[in-house]
Amino acid sequence: METVFKVRFLPLDITFPADESQSILDVAMRAGVHVNASCSGNGVCGKCRVRVLEGTVKSTEHPKVSAEDYEGGTRLACQTMPASDLVVEIPLESQIDKNVLKKTSINSRVSDDYRQEGAFGELKVRPLVRKGYAEMSPPNMADNVSDWSRLLRVFREKGARDNPITTSLEVLRGVGRVVRDGQWKVTASYVVNGKNVEVVALEAGDTTETAFAVAIDIGTTTVCGRLVAIKGSRCSGHPASHVVAESADYNGQISYGEDVISRIMFSRKKGGLRKLQGIVTATINGVLRDLLSQSGIDPRSISQIIVAGNTVMTHLFLGIDPTYIMLAPYTPTAVTFPACSARSLGIELPETARAYLLPCVASYIGGDIVSGVLASAMTRHEELSLFMDIGTNGEIVLGNKEWLLSVSCSAGPAFEGGGIQFGVRATSGAIEQVKIHPATFEPMILTIGKAKPLGICGSGLIDLAAGLLEAGLIDQKGRFIRDAATRRVREGDGCWEYLVCEAEDTSIDKDIVITEIDLDNLIRTKAAIFAGCKVLLDSAGLTFNDVRYFIIAGGFGHYIDLQKAKTIGLLPELSDDTFRFIGNSSLTGAHLISLDGKLLDEAQKIAGMMTNVELSNNPGFMEEFTAAMFLPHTNDSFFPSVRERLRSV
Amino acid sequence: METVFKVRFLPLDITFPADESQSILDVAMRAGVHVNASCSGNGVCGKCRVRVLEGTVKSTEHPKVSAEDYEGGTRLACQTMPASDLVVEIPLESQIDKNVLKKTSINSRVSDDYRQEGAFGELKVRPLVRKGYAEMSPPNMADNVSDWSRLLRVFREKGARDNPITTSLEVLRGVGRVVRDGQWKVTASYVVNGKNVEVVALEAGDTTETAFAVAIDIGTTTVCGRLVAIKGSRCSGHPASHVVAESADYNGQISYGEDVISRIMFSRKKGGLRKLQGIVTATINGVLRDLLSQSGIDPRSISQIIVAGNTVMTHLFLGIDPTYIMLAPYTPTAVTFPACSARSLGIELPETARAYLLPCVASYIGGDIVSGVLASAMTRHEELSLFMDIGTNGEIVLGNKEWLLSVSCSAGPAFEGGGIQFGVRATSGAIEQVKIHPATFEPMILTIGKAKPLGICGSGLIDLAAGLLEAGLIDQKGRFIRDAATRRVREGDGCWEYLVCEAEDTSIDKDIVITEIDLDNLIRTKAAIFAGCKVLLDSAGLTFNDVRYFIIAGGFGHYIDLQKAKTIGLLPELSDDTFRFIGNSSLTGAHLISLDGKLLDEAQKIAGMMTNVELSNNPGFMEEFTAAMFLPHTNDSFFPSVRERLRSV
Repeated sequence: METVFKVRFLPLDITFPADESQSILDVAMRAGVHVNASCSGNGVCGKCRVRVLEGTVKSTEHPKVSAEDYEGGTRLACQTMPASDLVVEIPLESQIDKNVLKKTSINSRVSDDYRQEGAFGELKVRPLVRKGYAEMSPPNMADNVSDWSRLLRVFREKGARDNPITTSLEVLRGVGRVVRDGQWKVTASYVVNGKNVEVVALEAGDTTETAFAVAIDIGTTTVCGRLVAIKGSRCSGHPASHVVAESADYNGQISYGEDVISRIMFSRKKGGLRKLQGIVTATINGVLRDLLSQSGIDPRSISQIIVAGNTVMTHLFLGIDPTYIMLAPYTPTAVTFPACSARSLGIELPETARAYLLPCVASYIGGDIVSGVLASAMTRHEELSLFMDIGTNGEIVLGNKEWLLSVSCSAGPAFEGGGIQFGVRATSGAIEQVKIHPATFEPMILTIGKAKPLGICGSGLIDLAAGLLEAGLIDQKGRFIRDAATRRVREGDGCWEYLVCEAEDTSIDKDIVITEIDLDNLIRTKAAIFAGCKVLLDSAGLTFNDVRYFIIAGGFGHYIDLQKAKTIGLLPELSDDTFRFIGNSSLTGAHLISLDGKLLDEAQKIAGMMTNVELSNNPGFMEEFTAAMFLPHTNDSFFPSVRERLRSV
Repeated sequence: METVFKVRFLPLDITFPADESQSILDVAMRAGVHVNASCSGNGVCGKCRVRVLEGTVKSTEHPKVSAEDYEGGTRLACQTMPASDLVVEIPLESQIDKNVLKKTSINSRVSDDYRQEGAFGELKVRPLVRKGYAEMSPPNMADNVSDWSRLLRVFREKGARDNPITTSLEVLRGVGRVVRDGQWKVTASYVVNGKNVEVVALEAGDTTETAFAVAIDIGTTTVCGRLVAIKGSRCSGHPASHVVAESADYNGQISYGEDVISRIMFSRKKGGLRKLQGIVTATINGVLRDLLSQSGIDPRSISQIIVAGNTVMTHLFLGIDPTYIMLAPYTPTAVTFPACSARSLGIELPETARAYLLPCVASYIGGDIVSGVLASAMTRHEELSLFMDIGTNGEIVLGNKEWLLSVSCSAGPAFEGGGIQFGVRATSGAIEQVKIHPATFEPMILTIGKAKPLGICGSGLIDLAAGLLEAGLIDQKGRFIRDAATRRVREGDGCWEYLVCEAEDTSIDKDIVITEIDLDNLIRTKAAIFAGCKVLLDSAGLTFNDVRYFIIAGGFGHYIDLQKAKTIGLLPELSDDTFRFIGNSSLTGAHLISLDGKLLDEAQKIAGMMTNVELSNNPGFMEEFTAAMFLPHTNDSFFPSVRERLRSV
């Protein structure tokens, strides 16, 4: 994000950077400036009126703004982009008093540049599947050894003198044609395994400069992919500079169950395992096609695919029966997986492309977490890190270069929309940011893609809970104040609720609300996560204050408002510079391995050093969980700032 | 062959052992006693009358023998089996004088017990795919590592502490079910490759006692198979005692060309390679089905198949394009081949069964020869051996434990029936043994399976050429004596010929003859082989007299009459105890490897130490070839005995 312009909001006199792609509503949300907005910025509700006092904007006239007002500088904030530095006045109906503002905080989200700080130092480029170029002398009657022997001879001269060099029948079948097509100049793709060298593909001519890898994260909900260019011997700059294209899609298995347990249940039906395997493969193939179409590269130049997924996703992708993960004592079939032909798994890549899987640790600590811990570089630091990946489950890893403890909490799918009446995944139209006016209790909402609201996703839920708490509309148990001075808090269908968005402003033609039941589910989820962290720290005899890096991974992490997450007690009250948002670290780990294959060994080491703490065995967990069933916590000494702020409400 | 009875032939007073499965005609042929016989022993011609003077026989009355004669002891030799020691009188019309008899020799065929002499000493049983039994403790909540990790733990305790242990996805997919079916007791089939251990199959319970391998020889003409029981840690007695069943069938590719060149030509047509691959696989599957039905074993207990074939057969079996073998400078695509799944080649074995291929040396020295040299144990002796495998081509290997020289002569397919007017392969009805009466010039013939004659196979051809030469019916260039005193030598359709069998006695309703053109082809073939031997010996500065073991391999070797082969100059005049007939040594090599996998390394070493002499480059070969185009040879000092015998005619 390149900062281009400054936007100064009056009368609060808050200045915030912006670029021309962001609406004034976006900028205000990020700056912590409240502007009433019900429709999330698609211009329907007409509430988010502001006045541009200085500077140039891009906007069009709108039926909800009269020609006279438009002439006077009035614009809908959601439909207006800065084209220069601006001074913008917030009208009275949207204003909040400064005291209240101080209690909320400027969005302190830390950018996901943690890995850019060079956690890995300079990365070597030495992929799992490498390429080597060979020029052979053509055969004659005095030297008519087999084509393959002729090729081996060159590789032996080039240094693989003592290494056993093998290949597959598939490669051998093409050797005669390829060496002649290339006029005795060929490029071999090979894999080194200990001393053994295995040639996995052979191409005519010199193709060492066109080599690509695909990194895939198979989430229970989403499948993400990156196309990575393998070039040079060291990463020139950041590993991200090797990314040629990115894509993602929902995991097609969603139709067969939202969470891993329901997927396992389906896999036990006749043909179910094969079906789920085929479906996730189809999703990956779709992502691949998109990566190829974005980049225009020749699919034959893709030599490897590195895949990370949780233990159940990994089993299903490989067609391994996951039944026993679900049944006590919860054993996966395997936690390390052989490299294999991508084609044999149904992936639409060249026959010679190889698939590598991240190792798992246990039934509920999978390859996604191992990959994420790798990407976080926490095992390269002496300092203590706490790594948290929140998706359908919440996995937490504590440790440093010497040791790792992990825990998986059944956090519940609240952050992915599960168990929330209007909960949705982080999709277009999902309400992802919300502010509640502390005096008027009116909401200011932003949706993903600025589409008409259709529901509330994880970060929106946190914003809502924090906003309701700070506005004094709910108590610390998440119960609505029955006599709140706003029509928005009301008794709905047998349950109290807050009206987030009126039916006419939504794309679902229903009022979008958040209910007490929703809040209870959210509290359970955040309590499980907080208790998980607490149990891990207790196991190691440590406290939150010992944590140097609090690393938050997951797509979720991109949108979470740090201050609000602390307000509801999801995250501890550590200084903001402790937190690192590293995005989809499972995908990043796979991406790093695609560049440096040695990191797969490091991932294996990480998996091996991780001790999993089983919560079902842990007497402390229920206690910690119960204590955390409060906003922010029954023991408010953990959250002194929040306590302070709430007292002043 | 168990000797049971003695048969004494009068008036020659020659006694020869026999058992009850052999007709008196068989015994007479082997004893060198001439009995006129035109129909090869199926009772049609009624010529082979003998009189049983003493002893008991099994026979039935026959329309060609009158009741009175039958009463007096007259029988058809081909329809009569001994049931006790016998004295048999040969009637006048079949008799030959003793002087002539002395010139022919008693059949000096050496039995194929060479390998039984313990060339390998005691053989260890340590197959390429081995089995290991493991008992695991069942998982519980305190110990819920993955099923695969649990299994590895046991193998590590059992000694594979430092070995990387891997497996395939196919095996992993079954692990969860198998360990539970076996109640945590399982048998793993594994392969050791350097330090690496790869588990290739997993079965519930203890199956270490039921393990089988299949050895296959893919000949251009015939596919032979043996089912081998893998048991114990050392071979109890001879390796042959591990053979459970044997089977063979014609290579179905025959319909697409008799020799390797025509097969290569066919493989270059669209779909041709795939077709030939499928056809030989189908032949192997037929042999496998027969082995299974003979033995009644569970196919799932077969863990490995060891396959030997010439270079073209190996390429075709593996689906590798053999084109460049045929085109100068005649390079095969590969001479070593990766182990792979038998199923992936279309072999109807369990998914986990692995296929191993014998390494080849060059385009025309294949895995069959490497396997044969291994089985011959010639590389375990200090003494010089000359190994010869005569099929469609003639491959010859000279050497000892220190060095090996090989040569492939385009011998032509005469010995397999090619280029011979009534030539046939060694099939039922093929004339395989012939004697010609030195005075009457009447033939005595035996066919395979005692079926009505349909043609002449390789050994019959040698017998005929030697017989015609010794009877003085042809000269040393193979030309018929125009005024021979027999109606059987006659001018046929533009070419002189000898009438072997009259139309009425054959199954083809045509006179079966041998022509001057046939004899010329035979002479070319034997000349090429003899010249090949000579060139090899010359290359090493050695002579025939330096050869301690003259090893003759191939199904052909089972039937060849040593003396007659010397008479025509196919084999040198060495003492009979120099010769070893070792049968299908390609199959035996594969069979030995199935018991002791280390022998595959030895085969690899043999392939590596073999220096192939290219005859197309060799100036001496044409000279030697021309010199050998004579019966037995232009330089008759090589054949003093034959010279002596022919002089006395």
